[in-house]
Amino acid sequence: MEFSNRISTLKPSAIREILKIPNDPELISFSAGNPAPDSFPVEAMSKIASDIFATGAARALQYGISEGHTPLRDITKKRMSEKYGVCSENDDLIITSGGQQAIEMTAKIFLNEGDVVICEEPSFVGALNALRSYGVKLVGIPVDDDGMKVDLVEEKLKTEKNVKLIYTIPTFQNPTGTTMSAERRRKLLELADRYDVMILEDSPYFELRFRGERVPAIKSMDKNGRVIFAGSYSKILAPGIRIGFACASKEIIAKLTVAKQVSDVHTNLFFQMLAAEYLTQNDIDEHIAKICDMYRTKLDKMLECMEKKFTKKVTFTRPEGGLFVMCTMPDGFDGAELANRAKAAKVTVVPGLAFATDETKICPTFRLNFSLPSLDEIERGIDRLAKVLNEYVG
Amino acid sequence: MEFSNRISTLKPSAIREILKIPNDPELISFSAGNPAPDSFPVEAMSKIASDIFATGAARALQYGISEGHTPLRDITKKRMSEKYGVCSENDDLIITSGGQQAIEMTAKIFLNEGDVVICEEPSFVGALNALRSYGVKLVGIPVDDDGMKVDLVEEKLKTEKNVKLIYTIPTFQNPTGTTMSAERRRKLLELADRYDVMILEDSPYFELRFRGERVPAIKSMDKNGRVIFAGSYSKILAPGIRIGFACASKEIIAKLTVAKQVSDVHTNLFFQMLAAEYLTQNDIDEHIAKICDMYRTKLDKMLECMEKKFTKKVTFTRPEGGLFVMCTMPDGFDGAELANRAKAAKVTVVPGLAFATDETKICPTFRLNFSLPSLDEIERGIDRLAKVLNEYVG
Repeated sequence: MEFSNRISTLKPSAIREILKIPNDPELISFSAGNPAPDSFPVEAMSKIASDIFATGAARALQYGISEGHTPLRDITKKRMSEKYGVCSENDDLIITSGGQQAIEMTAKIFLNEGDVVICEEPSFVGALNALRSYGVKLVGIPVDDDGMKVDLVEEKLKTEKNVKLIYTIPTFQNPTGTTMSAERRRKLLELADRYDVMILEDSPYFELRFRGERVPAIKSMDKNGRVIFAGSYSKILAPGIRIGFACASKEIIAKLTVAKQVSDVHTNLFFQMLAAEYLTQNDIDEHIAKICDMYRTKLDKMLECMEKKFTKKVTFTRPEGGLFVMCTMPDGFDGAELANRAKAAKVTVVPGLAFATDETKICPTFRLNFSLPSLDEIERGIDRLAKVLNEYVG
Repeated sequence: MEFSNRISTLKPSAIREILKIPNDPELISFSAGNPAPDSFPVEAMSKIASDIFATGAARALQYGISEGHTPLRDITKKRMSEKYGVCSENDDLIITSGGQQAIEMTAKIFLNEGDVVICEEPSFVGALNALRSYGVKLVGIPVDDDGMKVDLVEEKLKTEKNVKLIYTIPTFQNPTGTTMSAERRRKLLELADRYDVMILEDSPYFELRFRGERVPAIKSMDKNGRVIFAGSYSKILAPGIRIGFACASKEIIAKLTVAKQVSDVHTNLFFQMLAAEYLTQNDIDEHIAKICDMYRTKLDKMLECMEKKFTKKVTFTRPEGGLFVMCTMPDGFDGAELANRAKAAKVTVVPGLAFATDETKICPTFRLNFSLPSLDEIERGIDRLAKVLNEYVG
């Protein structure tokens, strides 16, 4: 028995062991990527679910079409187009089983083994693994406070052969929390056009902005059908329902639909109908504003505690939204070691290594999540972490 | 812009046009693969959904684990093991987004471009396309009343290079409705062992047996971890919820879990919890028996009408279960032409071409579904079809 080349390259790494969270009520987790459960509109969803069971069960439980439930597609298209300029009249939209599936299927329809994908360094491990699962080479571009350092991209486009795709999370990036400037977005799109490369704009967090001004989506500047925009209802409705979407040119959506058909036929239809109904009956922007209020308070609390308690040798990002803060220790320190020590002190973080294109490097970084823990847990968890850092970094 | 090789080979075929069903209330559809909506246990599901919203919403709407909801995995494992001998102590089980995802991920973890997959000819187009989407070569083996003609498999194993996988639907095969004999199953497994080839046993229909004796699953005879069993709740609960599973050796399930993680993270958690609760509170075997009663009546009605009305030049299978009957016209007649004529007469069938490994051939066959239409529709539909056949075949 032999596995395929593409999957053999995807080895479970040492990181998985660190990420295994013991079942311990004393543990405070900053290592999740989960939204706060009290952000889920449970009451409204429950009511709609009853209505669907009462009036539309036969349809909701039957096979649906691969493109997605038409009302949900239409509402999502309209909202993305009118509010954000994403999804023009040349574009179409497909409902996916979470944003993750939009990434995986984009990789499947564009990438041959040996192709090169340019991405942020560090970047979201789920996406990197989806790309790796098609046997591609990842080339990482460092990130600063204005996101991916786009001036370094052109050199890679010139020197690397077979660059097919640029993968970016431009807004409230995972894991750094930083946002790519409008200037850099324009420049990145221009480079993609010039070098005939596609851009996968992964944007599951962009509506979770707590302060500062919105930066236009790269897709909203796209004139040539070069950008695939991957969106998600995971962070603004609920992640367990697995509903996301991809917006791209009609030609690309047609190919994604073929990929979707062979992947899972369609996304759970009951919850597609439920989401469509929720978006019809409720003001989602009002709901998002409430989530932002909740998360802003949590982020501010976390940053305040870190300012007060962390050794000055550790720096950290100050995101304007999203779910994550990234911390950096001085060179030579190891985020994996810190994560292990933190776990022993009953607080979990994700070592930077988990987000690296090269998983053998030592990264002096670690990621903190602020959406899931309570304010009290944030205070106590940062306390514990500060002590661990004092011992380790000094 | 250039798509990947694997996807470029997956061309939308002429068949898609034929399969497009006009929205016409006069139309009788024998072309679906849908279960009857009155087979869905709507009341029980509705009650459980309310309970989950009342007591477990925060968990059901949050991220879950990629392997699947533990109680659903455990119940499924126990049932498959105790009742069918599928899932031994060396095996494990992963919940997938429908049986389709079990097929797609099996293809992903085993197949390199250019590998050969042996399958039944004809076979399920969704699976063939999932396999094609990894750039493999399909080699079809004819099917008779005892399923795949296994004696022809060895020759292919000897002559074809890089045969990696045998894909089979041994019980109530789609589209033929035939069942592979126990003797052939043993022989197929023996060949797979001898030639070091994996078997993907796709069995979404096997519990829908209306008469005759159960034939043991190939997986139940598997001593060497050579068989991946793909199962589904689509036909015994409801398809729109997209819940299936794969059972295989622990090593294979570990790889499928990695593939699942990058594909859609996990299957809709709410409906995994709902299914687990349904299986706990209800006797699923009793429910399946009721579905079988309903479908047996429909199948018998269809066969009876066909016997009476069809020209004797057309032969057809007499399945003991499942969803489908396959009809064969004399050589030289074209199932696609028949399907077009039938559509004009307001009854839809699927031409055999849709299930062929080589989509350029002319097939004198067409598939009928009996689970979705009512008894009255079956009678009137077969009437219409008989007239079309009389005109076309004579």
